[in-house]
Amino acid sequence: MSEFSLIQRFFTHAPKHTDLSVGDDAALITPTHGHQLAISTDMLVAGTHFFADAAPYDIGWKALAVNVSDMAAMGAQPKWATLALALPDANENWIDGFAQGFFACADAFHVDLIGGDTTKGPLNLCVTIFGETPQGKALRRDGAQVGDDIWVSGQLGSAAAGLAHLQGKITLSGDALQASLQALHRPVPRVALGLKLREIAHSCIDISDGLAADLGHILEASQVGATLYFAQIPHTLKIEHAERYVLSGGDDYELCFTAPPHQREHIEKIAAELQLPLSRIGNIHAGAGLTVLDAHGNALSLVKSGYDHFA
Amino acid sequence: MSEFSLIQRFFTHAPKHTDLSVGDDAALITPTHGHQLAISTDMLVAGTHFFADAAPYDIGWKALAVNVSDMAAMGAQPKWATLALALPDANENWIDGFAQGFFACADAFHVDLIGGDTTKGPLNLCVTIFGETPQGKALRRDGAQVGDDIWVSGQLGSAAAGLAHLQGKITLSGDALQASLQALHRPVPRVALGLKLREIAHSCIDISDGLAADLGHILEASQVGATLYFAQIPHTLKIEHAERYVLSGGDDYELCFTAPPHQREHIEKIAAELQLPLSRIGNIHAGAGLTVLDAHGNALSLVKSGYDHFA
Repeated sequence: MSEFSLIQRFFTHAPKHTDLSVGDDAALITPTHGHQLAISTDMLVAGTHFFADAAPYDIGWKALAVNVSDMAAMGAQPKWATLALALPDANENWIDGFAQGFFACADAFHVDLIGGDTTKGPLNLCVTIFGETPQGKALRRDGAQVGDDIWVSGQLGSAAAGLAHLQGKITLSGDALQASLQALHRPVPRVALGLKLREIAHSCIDISDGLAADLGHILEASQVGATLYFAQIPHTLKIEHAERYVLSGGDDYELCFTAPPHQREHIEKIAAELQLPLSRIGNIHAGAGLTVLDAHGNALSLVKSGYDHFA
Repeated sequence: MSEFSLIQRFFTHAPKHTDLSVGDDAALITPTHGHQLAISTDMLVAGTHFFADAAPYDIGWKALAVNVSDMAAMGAQPKWATLALALPDANENWIDGFAQGFFACADAFHVDLIGGDTTKGPLNLCVTIFGETPQGKALRRDGAQVGDDIWVSGQLGSAAAGLAHLQGKITLSGDALQASLQALHRPVPRVALGLKLREIAHSCIDISDGLAADLGHILEASQVGATLYFAQIPHTLKIEHAERYVLSGGDDYELCFTAPPHQREHIEKIAAELQLPLSRIGNIHAGAGLTVLDAHGNALSLVKSGYDHFA
């Protein structure tokens, strides 16, 4: 199967809001007047970001979902994406499964695949995504203010627990195993929440490296400190050292955001509308650094803060 | 050296036309009203697109230049790029050289690096580039018309000859070797030409896979045929089978375009202004397929049409 027919067969889907799609030297889009374009790129490598023998459907879903999550974190409406992939060979079953997972995510979030590149090489996926926000309305990391509440969506730690299970570090079973693998393989980016937070949140980030590390980015960019109350952080883990998974696990793709206290009622209404738990887990104060207190008011030590590929 | 300090140290340059650059979940740009955004992505893999031991400066230059060339082929003004790279290790010398080459090209073509990703893995570079064209003015592959002249910029075949030399297939020396390696390692995308062709050319493509293959994309997209006159195709090769390098070599990054005969004088004026040779090498006719005639009017056989990673 040639490179051309591979792209034709598996990666050509009718675009919905694109002037010129796959097939020329570049794609053409018409950005919406009065909006900014938000752009992000993520590269996923076999062995680092996923197991080489993982289900191709899951790899396809996740490759796009983690990028869509960056749009959610900016309060941007995802609209377009490009996909470059290096493949060790043209295994049609694998590509078919991958493309199905990728387009399932693309369809779920109204993203047009507008261009890409395929080449032979060690398995590597690079997605670049484009979304729109009204001018000046994007959610950024540098807007947290002293007195803000800190909120988080969904549940934390499940994806990391699923990964630890697959790595043989812990043993899960039954519903807990299913839920953890679902969280690890099929993260659901919080786009609808990001859009609703535009006029409400002062700062926002998606949790890819773990709550402590990612909230740390907000604190650093905003030059403030924070206290979290561990008992208020939502999770369903019934395992030893659950706090490590919850605080430092990563791969959650939930949103962590800060907002002034007068928005509490508004935020609880959004949670009800979206049927998505939104938990108030701490607050922003002057100074620097992150403190996490247990139910007795004692500080928890943070064993690891985020994943560093070259540390 | 951590991933964060690596990005801070080598990949943070002050942007010129970007609202929010490297450091948040996404970059923010304000596209120009009344323009379309042209978007293209290319992935380069060690061993396939460049020798793993090639000079990192050259790899950095070329990784961006081949993407800038896609903008030139669309008649788009390149403005922004993202860079994702997988590195086997954090070799500072290599990264320093790579970044210098990348930013030399970025500065030469006024491209802001607005975001990216670094990860551990087999060496892999993925650049996504964004440029602008006034609405409806982009140069496309599907606009060639019967009666059009076919033009090409610069010289063809040198990069392929340089590659053949490095592969030990031929032996070059002196100026010919220098010129070929320069063409291979430091291609100069024809951005200024692309911009001037917007109102003149009916179709355009950049020559990455070889003249025959890339002109073939225009013919297919435009549903027309073409005849080329080999003696009119500019090259400086003094080697056996020069025609193979000229017609099928690839990596030239010159522009091939079609335009109506009444534009000849205009195009020659552009050549003089840009001090860039523009050669009229054939014409478009009804039908399908490509014929290349030698100086005696005999058809040359095309031994290979373009590089296919999975054929």
